This record gives sequence, structure tokens and C-alpha cells, in this order.
Amino acid sequence: MRRYLPIFAWLPGYSGAALRRDLLASAVVTVMLIPQSLAYALLAGLPAEVGLYASITPLIAYAVFGSSRTLSVGPVAVASLMSAAALGQVAAQGTADYLAAAAVLALLSGGFLALLGVLRLGFLANFLSHPVISGFITASGILIAFSQLKHLLGISASGESLPALIQGMVQNLADWNPITLLLGIAVVLFLVWARSGAVTLLQRVSLSKETASLLVKAAPVVGVLATIVLASGLDLEGKGVQLVGAIPSGLPQLQWPHFSWALVEQLALPAVMISVIGYVESVSVGKTLGARRRQKIDMNQELIGLGSANLASGISGGFPVTGGFSRSVVNFDAGAETQLASVFTAIGIALAAMFLTPFLYFLPKATLAATIIVAVLSLVDFSILKKTWRYSPSDFFAVLVTIVVTLLFGVEIGVSCGVLASIVLFLYRTSKPHIAEVGLVEGTEHFRNVERHQVMTMPQILSIRVDESLMFANAAFLEERIYRDVAATPELRHVILMCSAINEIDWSALETLESINEQLQEAGICLHLSEVKGPVMDALQRCGFLEEISGKIFFTQYQAFTELRENFSGCAES
Amino acid sequence: MRRYLPIFAWLPGYSGAALRRDLLASAVVTVMLIPQSLAYALLAGLPAEVGLYASITPLIAYAVFGSSRTLSVGPVAVASLMSAAALGQVAAQGTADYLAAAAVLALLSGGFLALLGVLRLGFLANFLSHPVISGFITASGILIAFSQLKHLLGISASGESLPALIQGMVQNLADWNPITLLLGIAVVLFLVWARSGAVTLLQRVSLSKETASLLVKAAPVVGVLATIVLASGLDLEGKGVQLVGAIPSGLPQLQWPHFSWALVEQLALPAVMISVIGYVESVSVGKTLGARRRQKIDMNQELIGLGSANLASGISGGFPVTGGFSRSVVNFDAGAETQLASVFTAIGIALAAMFLTPFLYFLPKATLAATIIVAVLSLVDFSILKKTWRYSPSDFFAVLVTIVVTLLFGVEIGVSCGVLASIVLFLYRTSKPHIAEVGLVEGTEHFRNVERHQVMTMPQILSIRVDESLMFANAAFLEERIYRDVAATPELRHVILMCSAINEIDWSALETLESINEQLQEAGICLHLSEVKGPVMDALQRCGFLEEISGKIFFTQYQAFTELRENFSGCAES
Repeated sequence: MRRYLPIFAWLPGYSGAALRRDLLASAVVTVMLIPQSLAYALLAGLPAEVGLYASITPLIAYAVFGSSRTLSVGPVAVASLMSAAALGQVAAQGTADYLAAAAVLALLSGGFLALLGVLRLGFLANFLSHPVISGFITASGILIAFSQLKHLLGISASGESLPALIQGMVQNLADWNPITLLLGIAVVLFLVWARSGAVTLLQRVSLSKETASLLVKAAPVVGVLATIVLASGLDLEGKGVQLVGAIPSGLPQLQWPHFSWALVEQLALPAVMISVIGYVESVSVGKTLGARRRQKIDMNQELIGLGSANLASGISGGFPVTGGFSRSVVNFDAGAETQLASVFTAIGIALAAMFLTPFLYFLPKATLAATIIVAVLSLVDFSILKKTWRYSPSDFFAVLVTIVVTLLFGVEIGVSCGVLASIVLFLYRTSKPHIAEVGLVEGTEHFRNVERHQVMTMPQILSIRVDESLMFANAAFLEERIYRDVAATPELRHVILMCSAINEIDWSALETLESINEQLQEAGICLHLSEVKGPVMDALQRCGFLEEISGKIFFTQYQAFTELRENFSGCAES
Repeated sequence: MRRYLPIFAWLPGYSGAALRRDLLASAVVTVMLIPQSLAYALLAGLPAEVGLYASITPLIAYAVFGSSRTLSVGPVAVASLMSAAALGQVAAQGTADYLAAAAVLALLSGGFLALLGVLRLGFLANFLSHPVISGFITASGILIAFSQLKHLLGISASGESLPALIQGMVQNLADWNPITLLLGIAVVLFLVWARSGAVTLLQRVSLSKETASLLVKAAPVVGVLATIVLASGLDLEGKGVQLVGAIPSGLPQLQWPHFSWALVEQLALPAVMISVIGYVESVSVGKTLGARRRQKIDMNQELIGLGSANLASGISGGFPVTGGFSRSVVNFDAGAETQLASVFTAIGIALAAMFLTPFLYFLPKATLAATIIVAVLSLVDFSILKKTWRYSPSDFFAVLVTIVVTLLFGVEIGVSCGVLASIVLFLYRTSKPHIAEVGLVEGTEHFRNVERHQVMTMPQILSIRVDESLMFANAAFLEERIYRDVAATPELRHVILMCSAINEIDWSALETLESINEQLQEAGICLHLSEVKGPVMDALQRCGFLEEISGKIFFTQYQAFTELRENFSGCAES
């Protein structure tokens, strides 16, 4: 029970002190989440209230099933952008179909994550390499910022790639609204100032640094309130400023959305991508926070937690959610002890949905766009390009492909190409393994690369170390290398394959070894193996190769070398 | 010059003795190739003469550009089956479009192979693992045999998968022709007998075993002649036996086929598959024969050789060709010394195309079908299932997937799924590497797995050896394993990561190592590395990890263990 429902691990021992801390944290997070949830709904092309709906039941579901105590689940920027891209392919923004598709997308994501969790397939997410994720998030941040510029300018434009977004904006640039732009820029500047200057200012009025840091998280709410007051007082709607407008009050209805099988087929792949990216982002936040308090994150339980959150979002008219980075850090820093803080946050958002929506009528869309732009700029980090450039060309190339393709062709193609690039590059490296001729470091029993160390070798004995498991992609490469070396050294009588780095020999490589053994034997050269690992030895034994091989199997390379240099006779020609 | 045109390596030193041997071999191969070329054209859904056209210019092109001296290029069974599958998707059999598409398919295959060769990308073929090729060829053999049964029954049926073929035959079973069936079965029995009993018989009439073996290769021609005589003498056409019918006499016209870009798009992927499969089959024959006479096969030159052969086939109205196994072996055994034997064979086929076609009018299709069935049954070899089952589950699984999918869904999906399965299985294994706790083999400096050997360990020191390079797919796996071991051993002060099998650490794994280092340091545990390979050390140096790490880098695991057991203090908490 405690294994599958982590809530039972912490709820029974819950204390009054923890309650006070959770309540405080939830108040801070609620104030932060209200503008965020509205803004990310806007980013996903959905009505503002959907953002609120996606911030109630999912938080409660995660509280029950999730394994992180402080992760704050809800709408996040990258998943919202990916949702917009997926939904744009099946319905037009503003239609009921679009709304229904959003809920279906959440259900599919939730179902997929929960399935992976139940099947304990969390390791699949490991195939998203860190450079690909970094590159993808940076590119997404840029796409999100550009997609919000239209709201700042008061024009309409759409597109899923940078060229399309820019082209769309240029076409409609003539419709720009100066008041909207002024308002938007003012909010951006205020929010940027709040991130830097405001903490210092608040500390001067004798607040502690911690309190000041928490207070500035409310800056977006201040922006929201101020622009609501401006918009209603100065009738900005009449002056062409786009407002959020009427949104229904009350809680979302819980219902299973109607949908066709065709819709499921269209949304299945995007749902998988949104889930996996969201899961990887969320787990990395959860792990970081968990490590600070020595709390363990269970990868498979996280899949179930996030899966249930998305299922909950789907049946309450929401859209895909996941654990958000900035919100979780605020929750943690504000002192949240358990997921009860999230439950209280959900209650806060529910109250907002019931009572605050009339006030949101006057909220300018430019305010929300400004909130998003400032938030996502912190995602953009090109330093990964510089770091990987120095470290390894293939990691650099994977980042570059991900960033460029995401910007030029959109999120889905971008992340697919990134994953593909990292796998192809890995296979390519595996297919050309590092193969070293090794020699004895004199006075020791160690063997090292002849090109890097001062070592002893003999022309009659060739010691080769392959720094990779032998498998279909690289077996031919080894074969060519050995034949080349053999051809270059007429005195050669013994080839020792030092297997210390060979963790596996697959069937293709085994067939290649058999052929190498035969060829060498015909040339009067013995093939020996040394330092063969247990599992590899077992496999070679099973298939009878140990009887076929012309030479011997030595426990260590040193034994092989010392024994063979006593006897250069080689193998009899077969 | 000699590098890019291998013909210049052997032609200048050509002798009269070699000429005699090449002439003899070409005579044997020509007699074998005439019925084969007709039959494989039939298998590809093409008129019989196209088989002859594909056996003239390609042989000459390969003689100039190919690196094997004895490979016999021309139509082969598997490539013909794959061509039928590809062409069936773009045109109907018997139309001029189908004929033109066949030539375009050959051109595309040729262009692709030649391009790979010029770019020196021959290693890409290594991604076809041996089990996948074995499984694919076995399944193709079964598909080919079933596809020819219709000619034996004298009915029409088509389909690219086993279920479709069987269904097609069952539907038209009522149309079966008893004379056709009788004729077909007679030829099958004769050919099977020729393979086994005929050699013994010929030896009794005082022929040497070698001559007898070569003579029986002419059995298909005997079948062809006998059934032509029967069909014309007994007017089998009037009795409903399908004959090859009128075929134009003369040499193929050399012309660049007309084609649309749309056709190229449709045929591009099949062309790639046909080329790669053909190339892999051909190279394995070439290597086997080359090794017997110590002649080297250059992988990239082979691409150019087979590429030019297919280009030649394309401009002379042919279809995809490659090096055939049985024909090459016959060529070799008959004493062929150089590719001049193939040039003479091409001349022989050209003479046949000019003067023999009138006689082929009466050739029953059932005879050709029987020839194909007997030839491909030697391709079917299920023993690979048994061998891989014993050797390794993932190789077995890859074979099984390839065979089952090819039979059920056809050649293109089959080979794609096979390649995909072998890559996914490899990635899966890489993502869960073998990680061993190691201890000192007392009295030596060697460290071995604690579970397999009697070794010394200390509770304060954990020595872990990862038997795989560290990369994105397995970094998280290592992290979890270390944390689990750390949690289980409260006395622990030092973790030594023995890197003897780590050939590379990619960026994802580096970030994971940094996080492991931090986490261990917070718990007062030092992280050390031992036996780090040169290239890995260089990379760690470049990115500054060697300064971050809490412990030391030891040259050998023995040095690490002996030094650390003197000092259990561990690392200061950071």
C-alpha cells in the first residue's frame, strides 16, 4: 500500500508544525500559480479558465500518487507550447473541438505515463540525453517568447516554427496597437526589475532576505492587478487592447470527454512526446529537491503520479500538466513539507475559479504574454553549446541539431531529430571502437597502449585491446584491423585479444571471431584470448568456441605474454 | 588508377593458362545462368528477356570496377523477390510502366551503392546484424517458394506475404491445371535428384568427382530443354500449360529510362533496402571466396563495383542485380581466375539473347518455377534459431522477429523490423550494463567480481566496475546502483569507480558523475576513479571534472585499494 500510494508514507505522521509550513507555502504558490495557469492556457491556445481547471484536480491526484513531497504540478511552459502544436493539427483555436482535444491529449498523456509506470518502463526516458533536453528547452523558450510577441503587439499571428511565427507577425504588423505594446513593455520591465532590484528594495524596508525573495514571486500578481485596474478604469478595451474577457465562474465539471478513434490516432504520438519531455523535466526537479532533504524519488512511481495528474486534468476539462521547475523551487523554499501544500494550493485555485473570474474580465492579454516572456527567458541557455563543444563533438552536434531543428521546424520534429541524432551518433561511435595495440609496462604486470606509454612488445606477439563490446556494428571493423596488422608483421605468430573491456560478444561478432580464428590458423598464427569476463566466457563456452579456438584462454594478459614469449612456434597450419 | 579500377591490377599480367581456365568457367556459368536469369525475371514479375538483359552489361561493369576476381554478378533470388514487392506498389505487372520502373529501381540501387562507395560509407552495412540477415534470407526463401507454387499449379495469384499468397492461391485453386502440375513436379524431382544422386551416377560412368559436380550444375538446362521439347511436341499450350511465349531476339538497347520524380520518391526506399541486402549477401560471398585464395575484398570498392553493375543494368532495361552465392561458387570451383570469366559469360548470354530466344517460346513457366523452388530451398535454414537460442536471447529474438514479420508482412517491413529490433535490443542492453562489485584476489594485484571469485573487500571501501561505456542511456542506472549500495553500507567512506571497461563518458554521463560526486560528498563519502583510459582521462581533464572530484584518480585499482585502506577518514562534508 505504502509502495503504490506514497501518501500513506507521510500522512499518518503529519504534525501541526508541518501543517503551518504547508499552509504558508501553499499561499505563496497559489498567488504565483493564478497568473501562470491563465498565461499557460493562453500559450496552449486555450481559454484562460482551462488553466485554472488544470491546476486543481491534477495537484490532488499527484499528492496521492506522486513520490516527491515538494513537487508542484500544473501547467508549464514547454508542455503548453507542445500542446498548442499538437492541438493546432486537429482543430481550430476557439472551437469546442479544440477544447475537447486538449482534454483528450491530457488523458492520453496520463494513460501513457501510468502505463509506463505500471510496466516499470521508466528507464525509457533515459534515451533522452541531457544535451538533447537542454537544447530542446532552450529552443522551446525562444519559440514561446516569439509566440507571445503577438500579444504584446496586439496583432494576430500563428505558427509552430520561428520562420512561420516571424512571417505571421510581419504580415499583420500594420494592425499593431500602441497602447497594448506600451502596457506589455511596462509589465515586462516591471517583472524584470522585480527579479533583480526588488529584493534589495524590500530588504531595505527591513524585511529578511528570505521573506523578500518570496514576496517578489508575487510580482506577476501585482502586474495582473495593476493592469486590471488600468484596463477597467481607462476603458482600454474600447481603445483596442485585447482583454481576457468573460470567463465562466465555478469549478470544472468532471466528465469523460467524448472522442473518436481518429482523434486518438492523431494525438497519440504528440501525447507520448509531451509526456516524456514533461516527465524528464519533472523528475529532474524532483530529484534535485529530494536530494536536498535526502528524500528518494522513485522513477516508476513518478510515472504513476504524473500519469494520474494528467488523467485528472483530462476528466476535468484541462490540458497536459507536469511538475514545474520554478514553482516547485518556490514551494520548497517557502517551506513546504509534504504534498498537503499542493492540496491547499488546489483549494486556493478552486476558490479563485469560483470567486475571482469576474475580475479577470479586464485582464489584458498583453499582461499574461509579458509574464510568459519573462518566465521563459530563464529557460534559454546557450552555454550548453559551449560546454559540449569543448567536451565532445557528438554531444555538441546533438545539441545543435535539436536547437536548429526545433526553431526551424517546431517542437515535435525538433525533439524527434534530437533523440534520433543522439542514438545514431552513439551507434556510429560504437561501430568504430577504440582499438589499441598494448604492451607490457616494464617492472609491472600492466599492459597499456603502445602509443601512449613506454612499453615492451615483441614482433612475434600482437596484443590487441578492443575498448568496446563486440557486436554486429563493429565486428567487421575489428576483423579489418587484425588482418591489417597481421599483413604488416611477417614475424607474427600469436595474436592475443585482450578482452578486459569486452562486456558482450553477440552472435554476429562470434561468427566474425570464428572466421578470424580460421583465417589466422591458415596463416600459421595462433589466436588467444586474455582477461575474458565471466559472462562472456560463459557464452563462449556454451557455443563451443573455446574448443574451436587455435590458441588458449589466459586469466590475465601478463600470463599470456610471459607464457607465449617462451614459445614462438605459433599454430600448425590447419 | 589501380585503386579505383581493380581491372588494372590483374589484366596486365594475364596469362594464357588463366585464359583457358576463365573460358571453361564461363562456359559452365553461362549454362547455369540462362535458366536462372529467365526464372528470376519471372520471379520479379518481369518478361523473361529482362533476365537476360540484366546478365550482360552488369557483368562487364563489375569486371571493371569490382574488387572480387571470382564473384558472379547477375539476377539473384532475394533481390528479385524484393524488386517484385517494390514494383508491385507503383505499376501493374505486364505494363510498360512496370518494365520502366524496374530499370529505374536498378538505377537508383546502383546510384545509391556507388554513392556510398565514393563517400566510403561501406560500414553502414554493418548495422545489418548476421542473425537478421540469416533470418531474412530464410524467410525470403519460403516466400519465394510459395510465390512460385502458383506457376506449378498453373493458376494466378499474387501477394507479398505468406497469408496473402496462400489466400490468393486458395481462391484460384479451382483453375489448377493437372498437366502443368505434373510437369512441374517432374522437374522438381529431377532437380532434387540431380543435386544428390546424379553425381554418384556420373562418377560411375568414370567421370572425376569434380567434373561430375560441375556437370550436374547443368541440370536446370537439361530440364529446360526436355520440357521445351515436350511442350512443342505435345502442344502443351493447347492443353492449358502456360509457356514463356514470344520473346524479342537481340541485344537490349542502351538508353536512359524516362521517369518522374514521383516514381523516384516511391522507389527510393525499396532501392536502398535492395541495395543494402544485395551488397551484404554479395560481400559475404566475395569474402569467403577471396579468403580461399588470399585475395582481398575492398568493402568500398565493392560498393562501387555493385553500384556500376546496377547502373549498367538500369540503362540496358534490366532490374536490380548483385553477386549470387551458388553461381559464384560454381565459377570459382570451375577454375575462374579473373573477372574475364564473367566477361565471357556476358558474351555467352548476349549470344543467347540474339539466337536462342525463338526456342524459349515453348518453355513452360512451371519449369522455371521448379528451378526457382529447388534453388531457394537451400536458402531456408532454421538452424540459426536453435544456435542463437542457445547463445543469446536477444540475437534469438532478432532472428525470430525478422522471420515472423517477413513472412507475415513482406520483405520490406520484415527487414526494417529486423534491423530496428537488433538496434533497440542493443540499446536496451547498453542501458542496463553489467555492474560488478569487485574485490582483491589475494596474493595478486587483480580485482574480480565478488560474486564469482574468492576476493577480499572491506566495508569502508566499495569498488565498483561498470562493464560498459557511460552514456545517456545508462547513466541513471549507475547512479541508482551506487545510491543503493551506499544506503546499504553505513560504514562506507570511499567509492572507487574502476573504469577499465569505460571507453567513453558522454555529456549526460558526465553530468550524472558530477551529481554523484556531490551527493556522496554531502554524505561524507569520497569518490575515486581508477584505471581510467587515456581518451576518457583527456575528456575529464578538459571539462574540469578532475578538479571537482572529491577523491583521487589512481593509475590502478590495486594502488587505489592499498592506499585507501590505510585511511578511512573519507571526505569532509562540503
